[in-house]
Amino acid sequence: MTLKVIVRSIRTLSYVGGYKKIKDRPIKLYCAALVGAGYMAYNQHKKNTAEMKEIIQLSNYMAEPITPVDQLEKNRDDMKTQMELLIMRIQAEFCRALEKEEDEDAKFKVDRWMRKEGGGGITCVLQDGRVFEKAGVNISVVSGKLPPAAVQQMRSRGKKLENSELPFFAAGVSAVIHPRNPMVPTIHFNYRYFEVQDKDGVQWWFGGGTDLTPYYLDEQDAQHFHLTLKHACDEHDTAYYPKFKKWCDDYFSIPHRGERRGVGGIFFDDVDYPSQQEAFKFVTSCAEAVVPSYIPIVKKHKDAAYGYYERQWQLVRRGRYVEFNLIYDRGTKFGLHTPDARYESILMSLPLNAKWEYMHEIKPNSPEAELMKVLKQPRDWLNIEKGQSQAQRSTA
Amino acid sequence: MTLKVIVRSIRTLSYVGGYKKIKDRPIKLYCAALVGAGYMAYNQHKKNTAEMKEIIQLSNYMAEPITPVDQLEKNRDDMKTQMELLIMRIQAEFCRALEKEEDEDAKFKVDRWMRKEGGGGITCVLQDGRVFEKAGVNISVVSGKLPPAAVQQMRSRGKKLENSELPFFAAGVSAVIHPRNPMVPTIHFNYRYFEVQDKDGVQWWFGGGTDLTPYYLDEQDAQHFHLTLKHACDEHDTAYYPKFKKWCDDYFSIPHRGERRGVGGIFFDDVDYPSQQEAFKFVTSCAEAVVPSYIPIVKKHKDAAYGYYERQWQLVRRGRYVEFNLIYDRGTKFGLHTPDARYESILMSLPLNAKWEYMHEIKPNSPEAELMKVLKQPRDWLNIEKGQSQAQRSTA
Repeated sequence: MTLKVIVRSIRTLSYVGGYKKIKDRPIKLYCAALVGAGYMAYNQHKKNTAEMKEIIQLSNYMAEPITPVDQLEKNRDDMKTQMELLIMRIQAEFCRALEKEEDEDAKFKVDRWMRKEGGGGITCVLQDGRVFEKAGVNISVVSGKLPPAAVQQMRSRGKKLENSELPFFAAGVSAVIHPRNPMVPTIHFNYRYFEVQDKDGVQWWFGGGTDLTPYYLDEQDAQHFHLTLKHACDEHDTAYYPKFKKWCDDYFSIPHRGERRGVGGIFFDDVDYPSQQEAFKFVTSCAEAVVPSYIPIVKKHKDAAYGYYERQWQLVRRGRYVEFNLIYDRGTKFGLHTPDARYESILMSLPLNAKWEYMHEIKPNSPEAELMKVLKQPRDWLNIEKGQSQAQRSTA
Repeated sequence: MTLKVIVRSIRTLSYVGGYKKIKDRPIKLYCAALVGAGYMAYNQHKKNTAEMKEIIQLSNYMAEPITPVDQLEKNRDDMKTQMELLIMRIQAEFCRALEKEEDEDAKFKVDRWMRKEGGGGITCVLQDGRVFEKAGVNISVVSGKLPPAAVQQMRSRGKKLENSELPFFAAGVSAVIHPRNPMVPTIHFNYRYFEVQDKDGVQWWFGGGTDLTPYYLDEQDAQHFHLTLKHACDEHDTAYYPKFKKWCDDYFSIPHRGERRGVGGIFFDDVDYPSQQEAFKFVTSCAEAVVPSYIPIVKKHKDAAYGYYERQWQLVRRGRYVEFNLIYDRGTKFGLHTPDARYESILMSLPLNAKWEYMHEIKPNSPEAELMKVLKQPRDWLNIEKGQSQAQRSTA
């Protein structure tokens, strides 16, 4: 099958590119990057997936691609095709990795849906599992005409566009995983590619991010998570991680509570540099870093002991998650206000259960208070500003 | 004590006014209004509270008024004083009525809070009772300067105001009651008074409404509820109920789901007619109709049998309640975006527990499907349009 070959070649190219970039850097930086659990997990995962690519075929995806296969074959060099294949692969790899942590009978339910205006998506949800209370992994590949209000919204995000109906294309993968055990954090990630056509031609950009929301703080988890993301960024530009880490802290904020949603990660938008291929490779690295950033944390805590009190605290924090998603999250708001939106796919990010206690109070110096300190004041997990990795110190 | 006298005289006046209006109407209308359980309950309650007024004193309120007592005494004829005393009384009467339905040890927790910019509020919450899972009854009496953005928001609601910082006053009572038993509906009400001062003088208006959100449909409940509200409206203007019933259906809508929040009730804003005193009496009637519209429904169902399935459905519907409040409710959004807002009082409306199931499905012809029909297509509960009350027919 020809598609198999395309998929292989795209992935081979992207890996070769990724490794090459690391090798181009000064040896000192490369060695520094080797330190820490995050890198090892990330590297092992890259090796595994590099081996995996040999057996990639259509049946490895969660469902048929949204774009007909013959069209994908015809436009194999188009970024739209590359992005669709990337998000299909990331979705499948992440779903399989999550299922491995679950009991045997807990599997993702797969809904492939088409959109009247053009395109569609694949929504995968695993609900009420032993390990995952609700896990949603969604891809969408949509096109059509952007209404002027939506164009206006994009303009305010730094893109200069005409204020009239414009043809657009958007492809993205997004996931929110709410585990059952309060000792396992929630993860969210989203990677997306946009094209808008105006009279000057096609404008394109990437956006995305990965962030972690623990209920109980484990500093080593946070360091591992951030270090894994940092390595994915550093392969492309060492300026990326500090910049996108701060962007993440600023974005996932609940202003009325004066707190962040979690311990952060990375977040970026409007990435149209240094070139389309380089930007795609950067997004690929980030998306590939999801499994190694998160699965080790799931393995570590999924069988941890907890009681009623910890569960209640988790549910209260999930209420905050709902507040952020419904009041502030641009993606959710934009999605729900789009006519003909598939709201079930947008709202799959909400937890299965959440709680709102009036004036919920936590004990001073408790594990809950420890978490709140970090949510009130984001931390520099890798001591980037002081020029020395905290992880390095702790392993020294 | 002088305040006692003020309170008595205000209440006597308002009752006399209310009854007089009914008597002025043609006898036929008056008789028609007598029919139905709603009216009887409402009338009985009015009689009770009319008797109650003899023993009203400061200690009957949930806490000290927000405005110092000597200031209230000095400005006894000011609408600001009248409204503050009304909402204090409504809060206390409603809280006491709810406590009567509860086990003895379940009492409202009372928080009196002051606002840096001016004014404050009294938040009463009863949480985790046997009958009420979460009941919040809040009053606030606030004043200060409205930022231009808030002025702008008010202008868009029909008020013509200058676009600069303006002195304002707002007093209101609002409540959301989430019972534990899925057979008992959730009720929400809110009655408020605004003053804004611009170069042409003081502009004032009232707003408010009461609406019901059942988890299982009981048509008699819905009829009783609407009839009680209709009587409160009809005392003032027979055009009010149909107009404000429709406004309620339109307002409590969840567009992305294509459904209403519940079976409606009444909702209005910008009421500055026919005169300040008449508008106040109208709002008083509506606020006094809350107890007789709701408490009989609580009594009727609070010991009804239910199981796991009914509880799960209630939790899923509560998720929809959260969606409405956080995404669409103007009051919540406006409140949370106000600097120095007491978010705990704004968010006390959220249920103690809520659920989001991906692709939740209900069985055709089930009691859940019965409810959904009404949420998709609001019903004319009193057959106003056909000129005959459905309640009349059913009691004939």
